[in-house]
Amino acid sequence: MNQLAFIGLGSMGLPMARNLLSARFPVAGFDMNPRALAALADAGGRVCDSARDAARGADALILMVVNATQAEQILFDEGALESLADDALVVLMATCPSAAVARLAERVAAVGRQLVDAPVSGGVVGARARTLSIMAAAPAAVFERIFPVLRGMGDKVFHVGEEPGQGAVVKTVNQLLCGVHIAAVAEAFSLARKAGVDLQVLLEIMSGSAAASWMLKDRGPRMLRDDPEVTSAIDIFVKDLGIVLASGSDSRVALPLAAAAHQMFLATAGRGLGQADDSQVIQSYDLINGNCQA
Amino acid sequence: MNQLAFIGLGSMGLPMARNLLSARFPVAGFDMNPRALAALADAGGRVCDSARDAARGADALILMVVNATQAEQILFDEGALESLADDALVVLMATCPSAAVARLAERVAAVGRQLVDAPVSGGVVGARARTLSIMAAAPAAVFERIFPVLRGMGDKVFHVGEEPGQGAVVKTVNQLLCGVHIAAVAEAFSLARKAGVDLQVLLEIMSGSAAASWMLKDRGPRMLRDDPEVTSAIDIFVKDLGIVLASGSDSRVALPLAAAAHQMFLATAGRGLGQADDSQVIQSYDLINGNCQA
Repeated sequence: MNQLAFIGLGSMGLPMARNLLSARFPVAGFDMNPRALAALADAGGRVCDSARDAARGADALILMVVNATQAEQILFDEGALESLADDALVVLMATCPSAAVARLAERVAAVGRQLVDAPVSGGVVGARARTLSIMAAAPAAVFERIFPVLRGMGDKVFHVGEEPGQGAVVKTVNQLLCGVHIAAVAEAFSLARKAGVDLQVLLEIMSGSAAASWMLKDRGPRMLRDDPEVTSAIDIFVKDLGIVLASGSDSRVALPLAAAAHQMFLATAGRGLGQADDSQVIQSYDLINGNCQA
Repeated sequence: MNQLAFIGLGSMGLPMARNLLSARFPVAGFDMNPRALAALADAGGRVCDSARDAARGADALILMVVNATQAEQILFDEGALESLADDALVVLMATCPSAAVARLAERVAAVGRQLVDAPVSGGVVGARARTLSIMAAAPAAVFERIFPVLRGMGDKVFHVGEEPGQGAVVKTVNQLLCGVHIAAVAEAFSLARKAGVDLQVLLEIMSGSAAASWMLKDRGPRMLRDDPEVTSAIDIFVKDLGIVLASGSDSRVALPLAAAAHQMFLATAGRGLGQADDSQVIQSYDLINGNCQA
């Protein structure tokens, strides 16, 4: 891997690109945001005027974009795919529906390149600290080629399957559990608050019992604060649980808990809280259960 | 506390009574099962012919029975309450609805004794290892009197409130999270299985990500085995999520996730699997989603 292209230098993408530069990979980058490009240049990256320019001659094109539609535009409409080196790999790291990833992989293969389906978990904190989990699906030989690059962005790199789309499934399942766990904590706290139980004591007990979850320990304390910092927004779970349910619908799988949790995130966003911290789904529970003066 | 009475020597109660004996508390016990009584005698306990006999002159009566109705029968119908010492404490450790505990506490107070609402979490493993979490609600002075006894059965003893019923609420909230977490893992695995993802790899990834929960790590491996050992039965969550929903109904709190999870445990019990390990709720997900040959 002599040359990498990186498209999508947002709150996740920029620190990921920085970590690749620290690992001595040459990175050419593009983003619509000029401040992101300036930050890449500061870190030693080469800044380009378009996705096509960044991709020119690269051995791997890393896409940390918003969704599958944006990945499609960059690869096909903006001509990034055709300007890559002949045997280049396209590494899709955004959270996308599995079926969309499989379709993209076919279109990439049709022009002689290969897609690595490699979504991540760990958020901005993990992107900065190079502690992301990366769930990669690709034929074994392809996975071996891209492994050093993935290892430059995360410390837990898993080969989850040979077929593009299987990484997306694992990420989807991850988000199902994350979203349901956050909503479950909010639901539990709402019941306890109505009964007059001290929620700080409750949080301490639950954190050390069989009721514990990663989300309880991370989001639980923020549910008890009035205006917590935003580490991941309500809108992310509106989108990601939407992908979970679309995947379920595509493959005809009933997901009653995910569906119920999605409704609560949707209602929270519907009151204008889409950019609030996702812990604030508790406000929807407290509202419907009469725990707040409306 | 010179003399303890212990009623209900089942899979939890017997090891709890043994641990009290190891901590040098004199224990008089009663259970309908003669083998349980023989085991208590082997551990150095005094075996009695009835609940009333066990309670005679005791400073504290510990009830580790099936439900609130059984506690009521023992205390009032079988005369255990009136045979206790004058200022004795009644320690209710079963999982009961909060409102039922509050009513029991009133009836106990009417004859000059006091009820300690002290449900536990940690299962048979915690009962044996003396690592139970105990969530006690009682006036502070009462809690102080009973603390050494509770400490003889668990290593995490919390004073969650002054009013009997608040311990039951905390336990209820605990079971809400536990039950929803088990069902969420089953739902997630069912989606992944349909997509052909290797569930062992998936379990490993989720256990180290933000999707992790205590239940994922404990029940997840058993969901992947054909006929796992039973550490806690489906019927326990049929009962406990029933208590969760009854508490929600009593205090007018909507609990959409708990309600959905309860349905899946109910359906599993409905197919005759009530005594199977609670991880086997996954069979209901796999059945409805076409993952098994029916």
